[in-house]
Parts: sequence; structure tokens; C-alpha cells
Amino acid sequence: MITRRDAASAYYRGKRFLVTGGLGFIGSTLSLRLSALGADVTIMDSLIPGYGGNPYNVKGFEQSLRINIADVRDRPAVNWLVNDQDGLFNLAGTLSHTDSMRDPFTDLEINGVAQLCILEACRTNNPGIKIVFAGTRGQYGRATYLPVDEDHPMRPIDINGINNVAAESYHLLYHSAYGIRSTSLRLTNTFGPRHQMRHARQGVLNWFIRQLLDGDTVRVFGDGAQKRDTNYVDDVVDGLLLAMMTPATDGHVYNLSGDAVSLTEFVEHAIAVVGGGSYEVVPYPPDVKLVEVGDYVATSARFHVATGWAPAVSIDEGLARTVSYYRANRDAYWP
Amino acid sequence: MITRRDAASAYYRGKRFLVTGGLGFIGSTLSLRLSALGADVTIMDSLIPGYGGNPYNVKGFEQSLRINIADVRDRPAVNWLVNDQDGLFNLAGTLSHTDSMRDPFTDLEINGVAQLCILEACRTNNPGIKIVFAGTRGQYGRATYLPVDEDHPMRPIDINGINNVAAESYHLLYHSAYGIRSTSLRLTNTFGPRHQMRHARQGVLNWFIRQLLDGDTVRVFGDGAQKRDTNYVDDVVDGLLLAMMTPATDGHVYNLSGDAVSLTEFVEHAIAVVGGGSYEVVPYPPDVKLVEVGDYVATSARFHVATGWAPAVSIDEGLARTVSYYRANRDAYWP
Repeated sequence: MITRRDAASAYYRGKRFLVTGGLGFIGSTLSLRLSALGADVTIMDSLIPGYGGNPYNVKGFEQSLRINIADVRDRPAVNWLVNDQDGLFNLAGTLSHTDSMRDPFTDLEINGVAQLCILEACRTNNPGIKIVFAGTRGQYGRATYLPVDEDHPMRPIDINGINNVAAESYHLLYHSAYGIRSTSLRLTNTFGPRHQMRHARQGVLNWFIRQLLDGDTVRVFGDGAQKRDTNYVDDVVDGLLLAMMTPATDGHVYNLSGDAVSLTEFVEHAIAVVGGGSYEVVPYPPDVKLVEVGDYVATSARFHVATGWAPAVSIDEGLARTVSYYRANRDAYWP
Repeated sequence: MITRRDAASAYYRGKRFLVTGGLGFIGSTLSLRLSALGADVTIMDSLIPGYGGNPYNVKGFEQSLRINIADVRDRPAVNWLVNDQDGLFNLAGTLSHTDSMRDPFTDLEINGVAQLCILEACRTNNPGIKIVFAGTRGQYGRATYLPVDEDHPMRPIDINGINNVAAESYHLLYHSAYGIRSTSLRLTNTFGPRHQMRHARQGVLNWFIRQLLDGDTVRVFGDGAQKRDTNYVDDVVDGLLLAMMTPATDGHVYNLSGDAVSLTEFVEHAIAVVGGGSYEVVPYPPDVKLVEVGDYVATSARFHVATGWAPAVSIDEGLARTVSYYRANRDAYWP
């Protein structure tokens, strides 16, 4: 995709971007790409333990990024940091289905209250900004048909999904009511380097990889046949970049989607890439069962039409890059 | 509806109910009905100025009601008050489309955070309770087809609508995840006695009536042809009572609907009932235009099937009762 890459390079060079959650999994990968494209990048991250932010994710590139530690609930900080930015990649937010059920108030603060802080800051201080918001498949709840398109009803089965529906709705409202250009990408299960590897609560795919790298028997919950739509992180970053630079996406929401496989199929791919390992299928723990949605397969046809985006990295290639990264950087991610 | 009334009487006698927002328009009307049916009623109301709560709404009945002044964001108070209740009519919440745009944070606190407080209190202290939540037509946004049924997409065009979608979703989630019996009624434009009469921000129908009773020329925004689905408050109270006593409503959402008329038609009915008056059609103020949804006509067929509910009070009869009430009690509602 030479053409797309050249266009991105011309678009991003010299522009200023704020990335909330910029020390996290997707945020750090995006920030490094933006910097490589010649953009001026400010990272905003709270580094709350357990949320996924890790300064090591941008190690060696600290001089080419502006790293600002602050919480998205910190209104004065948000008010200041949105100034003079061309765009905002709004990736801060909790991701955990189970955590949101245990502590619904914190989930609402970060995914609801803080998102209003960000949008109010933009409306007041920088109404010309473009915002790309990271939504989630969790907004849909249990699929009533497959593949899930953007018109599928949103009936979340956990607090995190409900709050993300609200957060996305705020973004669309600030577009329709105030003209703030905003786009939401509803992300699906994403894996790759720079994801935290200390617990399973923010994404099971990387957790499978950790278990294999530790030589443990991978534990797959349920019958293992539940399908997930998987994306490698670089493809997601491509999507975020394209959404930002494509005016036709303003005020719209789009699914991302990739390779749909069952959880055991994903683990089998990972075992082949790692070069060995085993898995067992075990019953759901109650807290996981409560938020299990069953099969999820999306279509990203609408986003493809709008931007030309399509995932380019296969599961095996993505796994190879991921395994290689963690073998080389294990000490920064293992407890 | 003798049969329905008898059934209600048998159901409610001696049972205990908490009514949040119980000094407000619908809450006070409901509380008085519950008390007349022999129920043991606790009213919870914050009496925040401008929100619609008014102790006068239950004047003369203070000895037969337990009146507890507290905010629904007050977690210890909520935790205590849900104890030993058979049911909760959850009517607290802001209603104003325009206020929610001016102060989105307060709207989110009351319609989002506080609703989680209430549900967590029930889950922890009284999981056997039944909850009837008052949702709103504002959850739908602009109708893409009429009449609007419960499957119509929810794309709110103001912060209040977004937060009510979240609040209703929490209620449904606490049913599906934790078995808390809950029902949401999506209310439409309701008018009648006990509504505050000091500003137009919580319902335009009563505001029209005030302008006529003051001898002012009624100001109708836009072209006046925009349709609203109108309910008289006693019919809404009937709906709330039926939802509470009907187990088949658990975990479901229902529209209420009544007489669909244009705003100018409603004003013409009101002029006839008041015995004189005039109106003019004027351009929308910007803050009202921003949240104007166009025609709204709902169908309550699903609720009729579930409970037998149908509105019984015509616009003219409702207007006659309303005008009579305010003529007799003007000093308690006019500034």
C-alpha cells in the first residue's frame, strides 16, 4: 500500500496530535507511528497501575515524543493539552468487562465523565480539532446476527459496554450539535506487542501468548469454540490513522474486523508460532461467564468503502511479531 | 377499569415502596395514588431548586407519607432507604434537554452515577426489590419512522438522552446479570397538575398553560406543526403502577403514548379550555433548536399487550383538570 503510506506521510508531517492513553498498548504503537510519520506527538497517560500504560512501550523514543502524565479526569490538564492540536486520538479508557462489573463507578468516571471533560475542553478551547475515538465491540453485547454491522442494536451486557455507548454518543453529539469533527472506530479483539502481560482482564489473546511463553498449559474458558474477530495492532493503528485523515469519516462510526477464529483456533496458531505448548478447555469462572457474549464476527465493509482500509497482517504473521517482541523484551512486561 | 383498579388495590395494600423524585410532578402524583391504594410510601427527593420537587405537591398528606429529603447521589442514604422496600419507582433524574447541554456533568452525575448508586444499593441490600424506571422519548433522538416502537434505534441528540440510555441500560443489565427485576417505561410529553410552572425547560406543555393563565400570548417555537405524543399525568401513573405489579414486564422496556398532536393544536385545545387566549409562532431560540427532534409519535402497543394499559384521559379532560388545579393553587407554583 505505497499510495496510502505516501498520503499518510504527507498528511501527518508537521501536524500536532494528542494521544490519550498514549503509553498503553494501541496508544503507544500509534504514537510511535505518528512520530515516524513526522508528526508532533503529545502522549497523555495516567499510568494507573493495571490499566495497561507502560513507559517502556516508547523506550528509546522519549526524545521525539512529549510525554505528559495526567488522568483524563483531570479537567485543567485536559483543557490545556487539547490546545493547538490538529487532532486527538482518544484511546484512554478502561477496557475490562469484569473490572467494570466489580467497580462500575470507576468505569463510568473514566469512560463517561472523563470523555465529557475531553469533549468540553475541545468545544471550549479547540473546536477545530478532529477526534478519533476508540469504541469497542462490547457496545453491541450478544450478536443477534453475524457479521455484525454498524446498524446492529447496541445492547451491552456489561457496564463497560454501556459506558462506551455513552462515550461514543457524546462524540457524535458534539459533532452534530457543535460541529466538532469526530469519528468512532469500534475495535474488536486486538493483539500484538506492547500489550500488558500481567493479567487477562484487558484482552485474552495476549494472555494466551503469555501462558505459552511461560510453558503453561493455556486455559480456554467455555467450550473454546466461541468466535472472536481478531486484529493485529498495526492494522488497528492503520485504521486510526486513516480515520483521522479522511474527512468523509466525520460524524460516523465504523467497525474494524479481521480474522474471525475460535479461541482454540487462535491458540493452535499461537502454539505453532511459539513452537510448542498445549491447552485445555475449562469451565467459565462466574465473573467471566457473566460478561461472555458468544460468537462475535464483524464486517468492516463500511470503513473499507470510506477509507480503503483492510487488515494486512495475518494471524500467523502477527503472532510471529508478537512472540518475537516479548521474547526480546520479557522483563518489561512479566511481573 | 374496575377490574384493573381492584387488582391494583389488592396488590398495593400494605406493600412498601420507595419513590425517588417523589416530590416532583409525576413522583408526587404517583405517591399520592400509592398511598390511597393502601401502600406504605417513602418519598426520596433532593428538592434541588429548579428541578421540579415541591413539598406543596403532597400538602395535606404529609402524615400518610414518609418524606426523606436526600439526593440520589448520596450513597449512604440510598443504601439505607432501599432496605425492606417491595418496590422502587425510580423517577429521580433531570429532564431538561437544554440544561443538559449547558451542564453535561451534572446531568451525567444525576442520570448516570446516581443510577448506578441506586442499582448497587439494590444489588447489595435488597436484591428482591422490583424497580420501575422512568425513561424518556429523548432516548430515541430524531425519529426515522413513525410511530416509534421500542426497536427504533436510540440516537439521542442531547446529553440528557444519552445519559438516560445509559441509565436504562444499567437497569436492564442488573436484571440480566444479577436478576434484579426491573422495567423501563419510556415516557413521552406528560402534562397535568403538580408540574413546576416557573420555567419551560422540563416540559413545554405545562408552560403553554401557564402563559395562557397569565394572559400572555403563548410563544410556540418553529412552525408549531411539530408533533408531540401527549399523556395526562394520571395515565402515566397508571402505567407505572401496572408495570410494577406485572411480573411479565421484568427486564423489558416499553413506550408510553397518548394523543399525538402538533404543538399549536395542543395550544388551541388549551385556549378553549381556559376560555380565551392567543398564540404566536416564533423562531427557535438557538439552545432549543439544537435539541429539537421534529415529530415524535410513539406506539405503546407492546405495553398494552403486557399490561392492558391504555390512556383514559383525553387532552381536553386533562387540560380541564390541570387548569382547575392551577387556578386553585396558583400561589404554590407561580414565582
